[in-house]
Amino acid sequence: MKIKELALLIEGTIEGDDNVDITDLSGIESARHGDLTFAMDEDKLTLAETSQTACILTTKTSRKSIKTLIRVHNPKLAFLIAYNAFQGKTLERSFIHPTAVIADSVVLGKNVRINAHVCIEDDVVIGDHTTIESGCVVKKVCKIGEHCHLYPNVVLYENTILKNQVILHGGVIIGSDGFGYVRDQGSIWKFPQLGTVVIEDRVEIGANSTIDRGSLGCTIIGAGTKIDNLCHIAHNVKIGKNVIMAAQCGIAGSTVIGDNVTMSGHVAVIDNVTVGQNVSIGGQSGVIGNIEANTSIWGSPARGVGKIKRQLAVLAWLTKNFSVLSKIVKEKNTTSS
Amino acid sequence: MKIKELALLIEGTIEGDDNVDITDLSGIESARHGDLTFAMDEDKLTLAETSQTACILTTKTSRKSIKTLIRVHNPKLAFLIAYNAFQGKTLERSFIHPTAVIADSVVLGKNVRINAHVCIEDDVVIGDHTTIESGCVVKKVCKIGEHCHLYPNVVLYENTILKNQVILHGGVIIGSDGFGYVRDQGSIWKFPQLGTVVIEDRVEIGANSTIDRGSLGCTIIGAGTKIDNLCHIAHNVKIGKNVIMAAQCGIAGSTVIGDNVTMSGHVAVIDNVTVGQNVSIGGQSGVIGNIEANTSIWGSPARGVGKIKRQLAVLAWLTKNFSVLSKIVKEKNTTSS
Amino acid sequence: MKIKELALLIEGTIEGDDNVDITDLSGIESARHGDLTFAMDEDKLTLAETSQTACILTTKTSRKSIKTLIRVHNPKLAFLIAYNAFQGKTLERSFIHPTAVIADSVVLGKNVRINAHVCIEDDVVIGDHTTIESGCVVKKVCKIGEHCHLYPNVVLYENTILKNQVILHGGVIIGSDGFGYVRDQGSIWKFPQLGTVVIEDRVEIGANSTIDRGSLGCTIIGAGTKIDNLCHIAHNVKIGKNVIMAAQCGIAGSTVIGDNVTMSGHVAVIDNVTVGQNVSIGGQSGVIGNIEANTSIWGSPARGVGKIKRQLAVLAWLTKNFSVLSKIVKEKNTTSS
Repeated sequence: MKIKELALLIEGTIEGDDNVDITDLSGIESARHGDLTFAMDEDKLTLAETSQTACILTTKTSRKSIKTLIRVHNPKLAFLIAYNAFQGKTLERSFIHPTAVIADSVVLGKNVRINAHVCIEDDVVIGDHTTIESGCVVKKVCKIGEHCHLYPNVVLYENTILKNQVILHGGVIIGSDGFGYVRDQGSIWKFPQLGTVVIEDRVEIGANSTIDRGSLGCTIIGAGTKIDNLCHIAHNVKIGKNVIMAAQCGIAGSTVIGDNVTMSGHVAVIDNVTVGQNVSIGGQSGVIGNIEANTSIWGSPARGVGKIKRQLAVLAWLTKNFSVLSKIVKEKNTTSS
Repeated sequence: MKIKELALLIEGTIEGDDNVDITDLSGIESARHGDLTFAMDEDKLTLAETSQTACILTTKTSRKSIKTLIRVHNPKLAFLIAYNAFQGKTLERSFIHPTAVIADSVVLGKNVRINAHVCIEDDVVIGDHTTIESGCVVKKVCKIGEHCHLYPNVVLYENTILKNQVILHGGVIIGSDGFGYVRDQGSIWKFPQLGTVVIEDRVEIGANSTIDRGSLGCTIIGAGTKIDNLCHIAHNVKIGKNVIMAAQCGIAGSTVIGDNVTMSGHVAVIDNVTVGQNVSIGGQSGVIGNIEANTSIWGSPARGVGKIKRQLAVLAWLTKNFSVLSKIVKEKNTTSS
Repeated sequence: MKIKELALLIEGTIEGDDNVDITDLSGIESARHGDLTFAMDEDKLTLAETSQTACILTTKTSRKSIKTLIRVHNPKLAFLIAYNAFQGKTLERSFIHPTAVIADSVVLGKNVRINAHVCIEDDVVIGDHTTIESGCVVKKVCKIGEHCHLYPNVVLYENTILKNQVILHGGVIIGSDGFGYVRDQGSIWKFPQLGTVVIEDRVEIGANSTIDRGSLGCTIIGAGTKIDNLCHIAHNVKIGKNVIMAAQCGIAGSTVIGDNVTMSGHVAVIDNVTVGQNVSIGGQSGVIGNIEANTSIWGSPARGVGKIKRQLAVLAWLTKNFSVLSKIVKEKNTTSS
């Protein structure tokens, strides 16, 4: 790609030699001759100058360089846009591996790619430009949209619905039975799990995460939401749009997570509560009640971030002053008795 | 199914038109013409009346309805029994997909179903009416009982024993090597993991959970126990009967969990301890010692539920009254010096 | 194996009948005629004497026995060495299952074993004596060393590097995309994940754990490190040598874990911090800053073990003495106003 073409695409201004061709993109450490890289600050810029990079994306305000620069508002975002432009040029053709087992009733869109040892059961519909990698299993009546990507060994239980541009990483299980039982006279009976899962547009789900089907209704993951590895979403949970959920979080049954919520890793949310929009939840928090929108919480059980920080500081102070405190309490006990 | 037949089965009394046929079961929101649904309270009953449902299971005491009711002791349990009756009628025939790889020495019972790309190694025995879905791998000398169901991509390491009516969801790994090492002179040596796993009757294990084989003995999951998604059971653990374990719990090596224990999500129990019968463990608890039977614990480290709630309340109170407390301590310091 | 041969190998001294042949190794409970077992203390020795074992490995100082003993410095380590000697004699021959799909450009070493329904994509290199079990998927340009073992349903994304003697248990996913996004004007954009993963010699990774590829650089797991089931290692993490990480831990992006660190289960470490060498981290800890080498920490947020134990004791004491404390505060409030 010509550097002028690139600068236009990312709305940047070229500084230095504009007769450069970009052949690939890479991080500073691994940049080869002809590569484009990016530098968010001047230390990184210095590092990039010592590399073989052809051109550096950097901020509007950073110093001049011996290398060709493209100055943009957000170098990381510009790098991403450039990357997508490069990727877009290698759109892959339709391909179905001969070992894939695909039921006769399956409907395939254009340019669908299905790799080795995949199994697709009856009445599944798969949209255009979708890729299903080796070892995936798609059970009956699933509907998969356009431009989806299922990495190896993903499992979709029956009736699962993926809308468009959904990415599921290796080992993800969607639509497994929810954890629903009825206790009666000392025995535990499995309650039927008849619902489905709907994964909306542009959702990405990390490796080995699991999303249970609704019990009688639907489990929903809202558009644009990103879920990291090894997360668990229980039956009938509704997750809003553009939620960011870091690794190993778990959301219990029927809970509602509002739009734009951000969770650090290892967070647990109990069943049947509502977490409002834009809530930010610190790592390892345990959410045991409804949470008001636009708040920041932390701890197990979760409290306001300011509150729990004060409580931790007070506990540390009390421990430091324990000998005095115990003397005061002892004297009070003596004078009271 | 005739409504009279159904009422007999679930020990209910019909109120209204008893000339109705039930064609399927569903939740209130998705009920179609001819469906049976259930309503636990009067709000749900009102909702059900506006649906196309043919008949509503409800409590002995709820109000009358324009729709046909069947009054029962526990509508949810009755719905479950009705569901099982419907399911029982569609028992599936024997089926082995031509892509399945099954060693010559494998012994298959009656009506076994094995789907695409399954691999079953030497000397495995599989009981009647068991289903093994696509992508499962069953290693040497495993014994699988009757009416078991392995969902896609389950892995059983060698010598694993599943008794009857065991359900393993997608991606479950049973019998992987335990985490056992011997440190010697700065190096870490793998200790042989020669034991097995026994999963007793009616156990259900959620998607992507992992159960390690015993080191020299056995890991055991007791009859009727239900384990949710992404749980980890280490080597030589003994889990009792009818235990309920929510998602993402982990039990460390050689620990014993008594019958009827209930655990919320994200609980961790250290190695070599015993949790007594009927113990209830709150979410994210960290159990670091033996726990007496019939108690309720919470927190990390876990304490009695009453105790930890008081401690949290006291910490909140101390934080609120911090300025007074610090004044008292400062004055005491002054008068003492 | 002759007992004298064995005693030489494990540097032990025989006490009793030295005309015994060892046919197999087992734990005390399951020892059969001709088996070797081990007893770390005198209770275990008594138990072993009642079994059918042919010979018992025990300590230099334990009492005499009616059975043949081999006295060694560390019976558990000696048992392990004996076990490896037995295993070494059954080295398996080259084998490629006809259902495996292997690209023409793949380079296979000597004695490689590849089982059913494996898929190996273009330009992969696999070293001598490596085993790849059923259902594994190895994507483009991966390099797998010698004596590696991939258990069923493991997935390696493209460019993953496994050095020698690496063991990956069932369902492990290596090289999945890191959790990297750029927020811009209310939308979330996926940042390219172009890096790789390097797993060094003798690393073992437990079932269903996930290791993300670097974003622009490398994720590294150091030689000799052992990771338990269901752990999550994020992009660009560097884990040192001989680290022990118990189940369900999670390490966030770009964090550095020093050599010989030990972590109990359910530990979470935030991104971009450094945990020094030889640090010991208690179960369920939440590490939210850099940690000095050679320290022991616990709690969420993690503090020194001594410190957090004192804080917990003080909180318990304050709760016990709450009525006196509240009286003191109330009186102070009265006299102040």
